[in-house]
Amino acid sequence: MRILVTNDDGINAPGIVMLERAAQRLGAEVVVVAPEQQHSAQSHAITIGKPMFARELPLTHGESRRIAIEGTPCDCVRLALIKLLDFKPDLCLSGINHGGNLGWNIFFSGTVSAAAEAHSFGVPSIAFSLARWSPGIQWEGIDVVAANLIRRLLAAKHSRPDWLYNVNLPDLAPDKIQGVRLTRQNPVVKGDNFEERRSPDGRRYFWPVWDEVTAARHRKDQADFDTTAIEEGFISLTPMRYEVTHTDEPGVLSAMEGFHAT
Amino acid sequence: MRILVTNDDGINAPGIVMLERAAQRLGAEVVVVAPEQQHSAQSHAITIGKPMFARELPLTHGESRRIAIEGTPCDCVRLALIKLLDFKPDLCLSGINHGGNLGWNIFFSGTVSAAAEAHSFGVPSIAFSLARWSPGIQWEGIDVVAANLIRRLLAAKHSRPDWLYNVNLPDLAPDKIQGVRLTRQNPVVKGDNFEERRSPDGRRYFWPVWDEVTAARHRKDQADFDTTAIEEGFISLTPMRYEVTHTDEPGVLSAMEGFHAT
Repeated sequence: MRILVTNDDGINAPGIVMLERAAQRLGAEVVVVAPEQQHSAQSHAITIGKPMFARELPLTHGESRRIAIEGTPCDCVRLALIKLLDFKPDLCLSGINHGGNLGWNIFFSGTVSAAAEAHSFGVPSIAFSLARWSPGIQWEGIDVVAANLIRRLLAAKHSRPDWLYNVNLPDLAPDKIQGVRLTRQNPVVKGDNFEERRSPDGRRYFWPVWDEVTAARHRKDQADFDTTAIEEGFISLTPMRYEVTHTDEPGVLSAMEGFHAT
Repeated sequence: MRILVTNDDGINAPGIVMLERAAQRLGAEVVVVAPEQQHSAQSHAITIGKPMFARELPLTHGESRRIAIEGTPCDCVRLALIKLLDFKPDLCLSGINHGGNLGWNIFFSGTVSAAAEAHSFGVPSIAFSLARWSPGIQWEGIDVVAANLIRRLLAAKHSRPDWLYNVNLPDLAPDKIQGVRLTRQNPVVKGDNFEERRSPDGRRYFWPVWDEVTAARHRKDQADFDTTAIEEGFISLTPMRYEVTHTDEPGVLSAMEGFHAT
């Protein structure tokens, strides 16, 4: 088994080493292709109109290759699958992100987008995030948790190779984790705000901040939400498909009959 | 009616003026909040960990406000809806993008992401793109086409205010447009490739390119695809919902029974 490992926190982030170790626990050959630098909240962004450097780095944890890209998480996946690798990986792992990727926020996530991009090339993929936003993550044992989860998914999905999951791990020591919940994306997670300030010469600028008051006002909880699983100490496992066509649109087709453009 | 207009080609792009004019043809008050600079292929990226400047610009086309943000398309929508506007717009229009946003490529699109972001705040939204990739767009009359389409959508959707559309216009003079097709996202649009080069000091770099040979190999056509509508001279109208949870996952839940994290 050959596994492509990437992330959005950059190739030197501690979380990606945990995924490498998880892959190696499964006996897999590991190829790392990840951004040179931190690319959080870069979503599905790709580089266009300018070139990207790709650097082969020294191997550090028993990888077969370790390549740093001067680009976004999706650039890494695309460059790896289209150009850099001479094989199609059996699996793509993205993460482990420092911070949860839950609810609407998954659309901002480079970690989740990289997994979705690999899936679009027919590679089964899993995004991993650890739902702790403050500094100082205790990574010890997280590789074992991830390996155990991947092993179960591989066993369950053996007959259907085309899958994509968003996994969030609760901010708990591994032995305190309550189990795994099959979840769906919480559609409403809105706590974003901006703090307005003035530069010394009087220009307005805005710092993005997370606002707990706004978040509490919008908050909706349901037992099967990804956010709820994390709050209750479970691993959140969300099966995903990046198909955003909405079919339930009565009346629209008839409204377009006899449309005149001019 | 008050309409928020944004885009990803930047506040000085010709396409955004077309949307302003379309909105004004509907009798709407227009507020423009758009990126200072070109942000194509920036997807749902947002600025975190650093501040953004917001500059009020001189009004040029009868807008009530015109604000340039030093950020991404999604930053513009978020800053407008959370902080800059003292009202909730009746509609958000994003575009008109120079280049189509079709198939898998909609996930890279800042134009579509900005509309999706506004929709996540409960604002009905439409992304507009013109499916011509080469330079030299003839914009004449495109504002009329957009206004006619928006007018029909407003009439059809009056009773259900929560909607999100991805509109692509064919590369045709308005009087040659064949009509409107209700479409779905083509799941396979893969023509991406990279051209490998060497810097003078021997380092590898890669230019992103579009490869027609790869595209033709992957190509799938169905009558209701967004790509097919454009090829046949129709306006492609794709209703969207950004809900990516996949519910059809037999066997996964049982595979997680008795999961041990450690």
